[in-house]
Amino acid sequence: MAHDLPEGHTRITLGLGYEGSLYRGWQTQPCGQTIQDTLQQALHHFVGRPCMAVCAGRTDTGVHALQQVVHIDTPVQRSQQSWVRGLNSALPDTIRVQWAHPVSEGFHARFSARSRTYLYVVRNHPIASPFMAKRVGWVYRPLQLAPMQAAARSLVGHHDFSSFRSSQCQAAHPNRTLHQLDIIEQAPYFLFVFHANAFLHHMVRNIMGALISIGQARHSPEWISDLLEQRDRRLAAPTFAASGLYLADVNYPADHGLPRQPWSERLHALTGISIDAPRI
Amino acid sequence: MAHDLPEGHTRITLGLGYEGSLYRGWQTQPCGQTIQDTLQQALHHFVGRPCMAVCAGRTDTGVHALQQVVHIDTPVQRSQQSWVRGLNSALPDTIRVQWAHPVSEGFHARFSARSRTYLYVVRNHPIASPFMAKRVGWVYRPLQLAPMQAAARSLVGHHDFSSFRSSQCQAAHPNRTLHQLDIIEQAPYFLFVFHANAFLHHMVRNIMGALISIGQARHSPEWISDLLEQRDRRLAAPTFAASGLYLADVNYPADHGLPRQPWSERLHALTGISIDAPRI
Repeated sequence: MAHDLPEGHTRITLGLGYEGSLYRGWQTQPCGQTIQDTLQQALHHFVGRPCMAVCAGRTDTGVHALQQVVHIDTPVQRSQQSWVRGLNSALPDTIRVQWAHPVSEGFHARFSARSRTYLYVVRNHPIASPFMAKRVGWVYRPLQLAPMQAAARSLVGHHDFSSFRSSQCQAAHPNRTLHQLDIIEQAPYFLFVFHANAFLHHMVRNIMGALISIGQARHSPEWISDLLEQRDRRLAAPTFAASGLYLADVNYPADHGLPRQPWSERLHALTGISIDAPRI
Repeated sequence: MAHDLPEGHTRITLGLGYEGSLYRGWQTQPCGQTIQDTLQQALHHFVGRPCMAVCAGRTDTGVHALQQVVHIDTPVQRSQQSWVRGLNSALPDTIRVQWAHPVSEGFHARFSARSRTYLYVVRNHPIASPFMAKRVGWVYRPLQLAPMQAAARSLVGHHDFSSFRSSQCQAAHPNRTLHQLDIIEQAPYFLFVFHANAFLHHMVRNIMGALISIGQARHSPEWISDLLEQRDRRLAAPTFAASGLYLADVNYPADHGLPRQPWSERLHALTGISIDAPRI
C-alpha cells in the first residue's frame, strides 16, 4: 500500500530521542514549543523548504522519548549520516536524531506501526533526586512490588480500557491489546514496561496512578480488575505525573529494515540508567 | 581540637547532593546563584536566623555533587529527619540534603577531611545525549581505554601537580597525593575515578583534558609523565568541561560517625547511572 509519496521525493524515517520536560508534547500547536514544531523548523533550516513530519506515538507535555519514529517526504538527497548531523546541528540539545533510514512508500510511521513500548521510571525514596526531578515519577512512601505485579497481570490482554482513558481521547474505540506489563524493582527505582498494539490518551499514566495506589496498599490488587470492568474513568486513581514516562520504542515489520535495539540498551545509551531487564 | 563552637550551639553536618549546571559553584559570590548562598538562604528560612555553612570540596561553576559535606553551628534543636525535610522544602529541586548528623566540636567539614573522591563521566558517542548534556562530558571521537589507563597510572602517588593547576589556584603549595585514578569503560560511557588527599583548582578537569587527548591518540601515554615533570600548566591540554564532574565523596575518620556509602551506590541512587565498579 502506497501512502502518497510525491513524484521525485524520497521517504526518510528518523529515530528521535528527546528530554520532553521543556516541550508541550509532540503535536504542533499554535503557540509552538512542541517537538513537531521544533523538528520541522530544523528540517526547514536543513533542507531549505517547509517539511512535514509524521510520527507514531504522539507524546504529551513533559513526556520523553528514547525512540520516536518519524517520517518525512523530501526531494532533497542527503546521506544518512548527513541527515543525522545536519538536523542535530539545527536542533536544541534536548532533541537528538539517533538515525536516518530511507524507506519505500509502503512505509508510514503511524499506520505501519505494529506496537509501541512505553517505560515509566519511578523513584521510590523519601528524598527526591536533585538530578532526576524532570525524568522520574517520585513516590516517597514505600511501594510493594508483589501487589503491583498481581494487579498488572490482570490488565494484560485485549480489553476495553475506558477506565484508563482520558476524557480528551480522540480514539475511535477504547479497545487495546496490552501484550506486556512488567515491573522491575532495582532500589530505589521501579521500572514499569508497557507494550501494547496502541495506547489510549493518558492510558499509561492512568494505569500508573492505579498501580502506585495498590503499591502503597491503598487498594488491593483486585481493585484494578474491578476498575477495568466498570469502564468508568471517574472511579480510577488520579493521572500520574508525566515526568517519568518514556516512549521507548515503536515496532514495525522487519522488512522495512529500520535499526533495531532493545529498549534497555537504548535507555542505558541515552540516560545512563542501566536495568537488568527481560528483553522485548 | 575544638573549632570555635559558640556557647549553646550544636554542630550539625549535612550531606548535600546537587545538579550544579544552574549554579556558580559552591562559594558565595556577590551576585549570588551559588550553592552556598542558596543553602544559607534555606537555612535562614528554616532556623529563622542567618547561618553560615562551611564545606569540604569547593566546587566550580557547573560541577555536580553526589555528596558534599557541610557543617553548620546552630542554637536551634531539631531532629535529624526534621533538618532533612525542613531544608529540602526550602531548597530548589536541584539541591537535596541527603542526611543530617550531629557532630562534636572536634569535627570541621574542611579541616577534618582526609581525602576527596571525584568522578568524571564521559559520553563517548558520535551523538550527544538529549538527556545528559549538562551531566556528562561529551567526546564524539572514539577513545581507547588502555593508553588512558597507562597514563593514569603514572599520575598516582605524591607529586607536584603544577602542570594541572589553574593559574587562579590559591593553594599554599602544588603537592598532592593521588591515591587512585581508575578508568572504567561501560560503552558508551567512560567513568574516571579520582581519589586524592586534596585537589588543586581545576586539577581534575586539567588531567581529564590530557587523558582525553591521549585516549584520542593525539599524544602517547608517556606525554603525561613529561607534563608532570615540566611543572608548567602552559604545556598541558585545555581544561575539560565542568559538565561531567561530580564531587562523589569526602572521607573523614570513622570516629565522627558520618553515614557511609560507596560512591557507586550513591551515583546509582541519585542519577540512575549504574557502574560495575571497584568499591573504594
